[in-house]
Order: sequence, then C-alpha cells, then structure tokens
Amino acid sequence: MSFEKDWREDAKRAAVEQALKRIRDGQIVGLGSGSTAAYAIRELGKRIATEGLNVLGIPTSYQSMFLAIESGIRLTTLNENPEIDIAIDGADQVSRDLNLIKGGGAALTREKIIDSAAKDLLIVVDETKIAAILDHPVPLEIFPIALQTSSKRIQQLGGKPILRQSLGKVGPVITDNNNFIIDVDFGVIKEPGNLENKLKTIPGIVETGLFLDMATEVYVGNKTTVHVLRKSII
Amino acid sequence: MSFEKDWREDAKRAAVEQALKRIRDGQIVGLGSGSTAAYAIRELGKRIATEGLNVLGIPTSYQSMFLAIESGIRLTTLNENPEIDIAIDGADQVSRDLNLIKGGGAALTREKIIDSAAKDLLIVVDETKIAAILDHPVPLEIFPIALQTSSKRIQQLGGKPILRQSLGKVGPVITDNNNFIIDVDFGVIKEPGNLENKLKTIPGIVETGLFLDMATEVYVGNKTTVHVLRKSII
Repeated sequence: MSFEKDWREDAKRAAVEQALKRIRDGQIVGLGSGSTAAYAIRELGKRIATEGLNVLGIPTSYQSMFLAIESGIRLTTLNENPEIDIAIDGADQVSRDLNLIKGGGAALTREKIIDSAAKDLLIVVDETKIAAILDHPVPLEIFPIALQTSSKRIQQLGGKPILRQSLGKVGPVITDNNNFIIDVDFGVIKEPGNLENKLKTIPGIVETGLFLDMATEVYVGNKTTVHVLRKSII
Repeated sequence: MSFEKDWREDAKRAAVEQALKRIRDGQIVGLGSGSTAAYAIRELGKRIATEGLNVLGIPTSYQSMFLAIESGIRLTTLNENPEIDIAIDGADQVSRDLNLIKGGGAALTREKIIDSAAKDLLIVVDETKIAAILDHPVPLEIFPIALQTSSKRIQQLGGKPILRQSLGKVGPVITDNNNFIIDVDFGVIKEPGNLENKLKTIPGIVETGLFLDMATEVYVGNKTTVHVLRKSII
C-alpha cells in the first residue's frame, strides 16, 4: 500500500465529481477510457439511478462500453447522434495551454473521434499530470504492416518509438481497431502542432495521442482540492 | 462489346509491359491493386517463369496477394523488407505534375503505405486518366463510427461525400482494414497539398486517396503508343 497512490485516487475522484456537475438532463455524453473515466462512468450511473438523470452515453472503448452497460447508462452512437454535448475523459499529460497527450489505454483513435465531436471536452486528472510543456511519450496507433516504415520515419523526426507489449496475451497490444500502439519519446515537445502535422503525413499512422486545442476545461485534483483550468478566450 | 474499352485495355497492357522492364533481378517489388496492377502482377509472374527472374513481392490488398500467389511471385512483408525498390500501381487520375488520386479499388491505405516505401513508384494508366488539374472524387477510408462526424467536417471543406456501396453484399463496402470508403467530390482541386493537410486533421479519416509527390514515373498508354511522364528534378 502506498500513500502516494491513495491521494491521487482521491484527487481524481474529487475532480470527477466536480466535472460531473456539468452534465444536465437530456444530454449526449462522450464516455472516455482509462481509470479516471471509469470513475466518471460509475458516478454518472449513480446519478442516473438516484436522480433519474436522463442521458445517453457514447463509449470510446470496449472498456467504457462494458462499464456503461454495467452502470445502467443507455448507449447511443455517433452515427445516430453526431453532436455530443459533453465528453469526459482522462489524459496522460496536460500542458498549461490545455494541450493533451492521451493513449495510455490504447483507446486514442476512438477517443479523438468522440472527444472532437463534443461541444465541451472536460478532462479530469490529478495534478501530477500537469506539465509546463508536453514531454510524455506520444502514443501512436499504427497499421501493423507499417511498423518498420513508420518507425523509421518517426526516428527521422527525432522520436524514439517502442512497440507497446501486451499483458494478457503474448506479443504486442492489439487495439480495439486491430492495430498496434507505439509509444514515441520525442523529449520536450516545443511545437506540438508542428509535430502533429508531420506525424499525420506518415502513411500507416492511424492516429496520434496529441489532442491539441480540444479540451474546454481541465479538472485537476490535488491533495486538498480541485482546480479548474479553462481555455482562455482571446 | 465496345471499341472504346478495347483500346484502353490494350493501352494499359502496353504501358504495363514497358514499366515492367524497369524491374531487375533481386528487387523487392510493391504490387499495386486494381485492373492495371493485375496485368502487371500476371506479367511479372510470366517473367519469373520464363526468365527465372528472382524478385519478392509485397501486395497492397487481398486481390494482389491472391493474384501474386497464383502467378508464382514469392511474397514478403514490409516488416521484413521495409525498403521497396519499385512499386507498380494504377491510379484513378493523374495530374501533369504527377499527383494522383487513388482508391477506386478501396485499397488506398495499404497502397499509400507500400507505395510510399518504394524508392521508385511507377504508375500505369491509359491516357483518359490524365488531367491538367485533379478533379476526380477523392476516396477516403474512414472509421465506421466517424461516418457522420467526418462527413460533416468534409462538407465544411466544400466536399460532397457519398458512402460507397458494395456489390456482393448488402450495405457499404468494407475495406481490407474493416473500414468504410466515402468518395468525396471536391470539384476542381487547385491546391491538393492544402486539401490533404486539412483532411488529415479530421479524426476518423484513416487515409486519403491523394497521393502527392510520390510517383516517380507515369506510363501512359494511348491508342498507338506509350508515353512516360517523369518527375521533373528542379
């Protein structure tokens, strides 16, 4: 048991509770993936059960789909409801200008599709995820046949790619879309927009974990309280 | 029976024969998809059988994989051999500056991965495919969950998307990567590079049929002869 882990779980839970207050009756809600989003999905289920809240959820992974069903959240799809009111999701790293690195749970492609369809994207993290400048390895979903060719081109951009290995089966992680994930260390990412554009030109890269200019609010839990970072409207 | 069709088939066949002369012993060859690439695969098989040519092929689709096996071409993968010497492929439209629109056969994603890994990309077409400026509808491979959201964003870029329907099964075409194809009419495409960059920022678009700055040579068959367009080195 580690004290360090405990405050972070409590901090995420407190931040989730505050973010969930934004959800209103009748809304379409994007359901993120990962441990923080899992709190949000369970809490949303409780509000549906206790307050009779009427919402429809759109899951970003099998994980969030199963959890939503278990939690009594009625589901819909982006093809039926292409406009999402609010999406709630976690992140691996958040910069002070609200750019994100996501994909620790290998769900980045569906998360990006769904999070980008939301009017408001609320990100929930504990404060250890906040950084002045992004420098976390960037997860990339890639087509299996393009592992070597895309890795070579990523190295030419200064990145160090590592094929993510699976637990629970031998060999690499296979995503919900049947692809691989590589985690790429680019060091300090001074110009994330520029990096994103360059990665997007590499055939075989399905999607990147750089979520730029997408988050509306970031709920940051620390040992004692929850702060909210908002997109500055300039 | 139409005379029109006959000369085009003969023209493609003659152009394929000329392009195939570029292939040398010991090379790794990217095998395109579609009716023109099918000629090339069969002809390559004949050269292997008659001349004992020793090459390894990397197919861009199930179609070209099956045809290569049938034609006696030994296969390899991009992970074993990430550098292809020559790829031979068809195209739906070719501009005079050698930009291409591809994807009529729904194989654009693997074609782009493999064609872009080739030192030389040889495109074979009949002369009806040559245009001063690209204006053919652009095939896009998209994730099924993102059909509505990506179509909306494509319309905001001025495109008219149509979900490609399948023959042989009910409903839409499903690609070799389990995705949909939409064919998008953008009218005359004056700035293909700009359009490509914009399409690439839309979550849910896996790949586009714009193959820009990739072709090394284009073999163009007409009623009497074969012309070769080459990338001008400036």
